[in-house]
Amino acid sequence: MASHQPLAVSLGDPAGVGPELIAAAWARRGDECLLPFFAVGGAKLLGSAAQSRGLHVPIVAISDAARATDVFADALPVLDAADCQWTPGAPSTEGARLALQSLTEATHLALSGAAGGIVTGPVAKARLAEIGFTQPGQTEFVADSCGVARQDAVMMLAGPSLRTVPLTIHEALADVPGLLTTDLIVRRARVVAKAMQRDFGLASPRLAVCGLNPHAGEEGRFGDEEARVIAPAIATLRAEGIAVTGPHSADTLFAPRERETYDVALCMYHDQALIPIKALDFDQGVNVTLGLPVVRTSPDHGTAFAIAGRNVADPGAMIAAIRMAGECAARRAQG
Amino acid sequence: MASHQPLAVSLGDPAGVGPELIAAAWARRGDECLLPFFAVGGAKLLGSAAQSRGLHVPIVAISDAARATDVFADALPVLDAADCQWTPGAPSTEGARLALQSLTEATHLALSGAAGGIVTGPVAKARLAEIGFTQPGQTEFVADSCGVARQDAVMMLAGPSLRTVPLTIHEALADVPGLLTTDLIVRRARVVAKAMQRDFGLASPRLAVCGLNPHAGEEGRFGDEEARVIAPAIATLRAEGIAVTGPHSADTLFAPRERETYDVALCMYHDQALIPIKALDFDQGVNVTLGLPVVRTSPDHGTAFAIAGRNVADPGAMIAAIRMAGECAARRAQG
Repeated sequence: MASHQPLAVSLGDPAGVGPELIAAAWARRGDECLLPFFAVGGAKLLGSAAQSRGLHVPIVAISDAARATDVFADALPVLDAADCQWTPGAPSTEGARLALQSLTEATHLALSGAAGGIVTGPVAKARLAEIGFTQPGQTEFVADSCGVARQDAVMMLAGPSLRTVPLTIHEALADVPGLLTTDLIVRRARVVAKAMQRDFGLASPRLAVCGLNPHAGEEGRFGDEEARVIAPAIATLRAEGIAVTGPHSADTLFAPRERETYDVALCMYHDQALIPIKALDFDQGVNVTLGLPVVRTSPDHGTAFAIAGRNVADPGAMIAAIRMAGECAARRAQG
Repeated sequence: MASHQPLAVSLGDPAGVGPELIAAAWARRGDECLLPFFAVGGAKLLGSAAQSRGLHVPIVAISDAARATDVFADALPVLDAADCQWTPGAPSTEGARLALQSLTEATHLALSGAAGGIVTGPVAKARLAEIGFTQPGQTEFVADSCGVARQDAVMMLAGPSLRTVPLTIHEALADVPGLLTTDLIVRRARVVAKAMQRDFGLASPRLAVCGLNPHAGEEGRFGDEEARVIAPAIATLRAEGIAVTGPHSADTLFAPRERETYDVALCMYHDQALIPIKALDFDQGVNVTLGLPVVRTSPDHGTAFAIAGRNVADPGAMIAAIRMAGECAARRAQG
């Protein structure tokens, strides 16, 4: 079933590093043992992007996703004829339209079962907004397309050292304490626990929940959210049989020995989750969306317009995102 | 002058890991090229702590700090006859009194010039409070003893990968936005810049200032503290000739390549500063107090009562704290 379906990779903004990293990932498909994938659109610009990195990447247009598996060993398969000029570092309206078309098509292919999952290249949200994209980001777009409530589509950052889930994301820090509720933590933690089993093969995943305040509030000395909001959520989750610990002092939870004691850390806000993953796993960080009917990953970096086309962007995160999507899809197919 | 004075090391809570780590550091004085230091009190308990780690540490009581330099090569010098039973993992009132006496004496020795600087072992704040210690921690105690306003005694965490300064410390996260002011940032940054020159030998130290909000607020989309509070501080500091950049997105600032672009990161709250340093440099983190007339460092860990006396605590941070204090003291003496 789905495990044998190739992955659909959306281009991201074609003026960013997405296309060159897709080409670079394909060029390293053997060393990295990547399962077959295909790009959605951009046949011409992918060729230019590959050349800019000095890579020999033959490109073969396919009209059916299923063809990708046969083509993949010898060429980068590209589905969909949409394309545009390759102008690295110079984003345009035309490029934004192509990025959105690629994302939309990739999502539909995964939903229909034609693709085993999707890997999304980095987009420029401001550019997408200009052409009428109403979601805050690709995660919400994919959730909406899948008919999943946004609060049940959970972003996880995963690298070789660590997995973290930010429970609030693009919110002013001053708003975070008011946004955290016991229900929110419980609801997201359930999604995380289930996904760790289904997609990551952990029979009894260990969740570590951070405190909000320094030293998790030191028993209420600075802040009461741990006792008032977080501890009740942990109690509820434990009663359901989920292996949850906390609230932990966030400053020590990401130290080497502590990292061995859990499979995923649930964090109260954006930087609590992203500081450790980017400090430790910068070039290998993957953004995974948990709780969807389709597998979706993304390299955990932006368009990097400033370095696009210069053969300096590291393909590590794109490769890791493709590998992780393949592994998750295979587990779902087996499960 | 002071560079040739030995360092005074306070015991910390004698039931914690302080004594065994002081003994372990002395045992590695050669390999680690440590400048002479002496412990303040605890001759008997230091011997027991050394034995628990299987270390041969001869202890020599000295009545004058200046004697430590001669003794150091062959024995761990101990000044002050105060002592107590060694009961690892079982803190007591007697132990808290000894910890406070050791800290007080070490501070006075540094202030008088008899010691080149002080390295403070980890204490249990709650225990100290029980015996009438009114300061929030050792940093404030030393600042008060030196007659320096607490807001001008600036905590910095330093490891091999990174230096960070939390501009607010033990405060509820909900209170942080209200506590940050332009004046606070400017005042602390000045102390940091001066100390980087005087104590760390950086002629033109590069300060990177974090934003408070995710992505430093993305131009006001989530939070306005960057524009309202932080950017004006940066402008003021630049006008004074200090090399300051920011406000930076905190999530990417601690990634490997970014870390090469600054000498110290100024962080808006506790976990923003402590998460990256503990993730990257857990066993080598040093807590340094900047802006004091005396050099003061401390290993960046607690009493670790749970593992005291079991020969498992890593002496890396204590050794790093002793080395850093020696280096800072030497630079002050030269400067």
